[in-house]
Amino acid sequence: MPTFRIELFEGRSVEDKRRLVDAITRTTCETLGVTPGSVDIILVDVKRENWATGGRLWSDPEPAV
Amino acid sequence: MPTFRIELFEGRSVEDKRRLVDAITRTTCETLGVTPGSVDIILVDVKRENWATGGRLWSDPEPAV
Amino acid sequence: MPTFRIELFEGRSVEDKRRLVDAITRTTCETLGVTPGSVDIILVDVKRENWATGGRLWSDPEPAV
Amino acid sequence: MPTFRIELFEGRSVEDKRRLVDAITRTTCETLGVTPGSVDIILVDVKRENWATGGRLWSDPEPAV
Amino acid sequence: MPTFRIELFEGRSVEDKRRLVDAITRTTCETLGVTPGSVDIILVDVKRENWATGGRLWSDPEPAV
Amino acid sequence: MPTFRIELFEGRSVEDKRRLVDAITRTTCETLGVTPGSVDIILVDVKRENWATGGRLWSDPEPAV
Repeated sequence: MPTFRIELFEGRSVEDKRRLVDAITRTTCETLGVTPGSVDIILVDVKRENWATGGRLWSDPEPAV
Repeated sequence: MPTFRIELFEGRSVEDKRRLVDAITRTTCETLGVTPGSVDIILVDVKRENWATGGRLWSDPEPAV
Repeated sequence: MPTFRIELFEGRSVEDKRRLVDAITRTTCETLGVTPGSVDIILVDVKRENWATGGRLWSDPEPAV
Repeated sequence: MPTFRIELFEGRSVEDKRRLVDAITRTTCETLGVTPGSVDIILVDVKRENWATGGRLWSDPEPAV
Repeated sequence: MPTFRIELFEGRSVEDKRRLVDAITRTTCETLGVTPGSVDIILVDVKRENWATGGRLWSDPEPAV
Repeated sequence: MPTFRIELFEGRSVEDKRRLVDAITRTTCETLGVTPGSVDIILVDVKRENWATGGRLWSDPEPAV
């Protein structure tokens, strides 16, 4: 019954998503010994203006050094 | 204080959502003995290209048998 | 495919949980026209020391007026 | 390694978000003694039609008394 | 920056978890072209009494046919 | 209505949590112009064996260089 929620920056193509969920599902089945039908994956497209690391939005330029 | 997050395929009408949150809130109050004002529900509209089961995106056709 | 995550204070009995998930599932099926098998519910037991409203942990006493 | 997910009504400007993640990151570093680079924050813009309290969607008018 | 949250039934050994996160990280890097250090994975151990499908807790026996 | 979920390594004292939620709530009210009572925060204590970065569980030693 593993259920995945994967947050990633928006902009990935459907083909990227298709390959990602296929590969993750195979890997999970091999590693945990579960069946493919028991694996659910929800992708969450996150805008760069909605993700911050170190207090800086990813939509903002990195400070010059 | 129950807080719900409900992921469902996008495309539901506001009327569907209105009826769902009303019914869920009533059911929760009856079952857990809490007051309506303590029940928060957040709905998450998920695109079919962002949900996979068995390694297949729900936006893709089912394989022929 | 609705998937629920419900955060509630820890301490509910299994019987409470059983009645809650049964009632929520019925309500969802009636309201959205989905089948029971498509409804997944994950309950999250939250300690009172891990939930705050208005800046106060629920494990702390309310301030006297 | 604190990771935040903050759900808030949609409509905040990028400047509001910038100030929020900056302030939250500083506060977290001061309070927990972690470094800014270890703090990740994901903002989730929620439509008013997707959030309910007391069984009422926030996009619907409050009932007259 | 992909961030995973994976809910699975409790009871997996640390070795199972180690192999899972290693395999998922490799797969993600190959598929999305990101670096390992950018992949965060949080595992959520869920008790069977806290997960329901079709209105039945997984801690309860399946109904006889 | 901002609702926070904060995942952090387990082991923080209640006093740490008390100070964190107090500070975060103040900061949020000042930054977004909301009232304290509208801010909910849920803390999620994560075991080091349940969090991985770069494919390595935080409960495992860093590889020697």
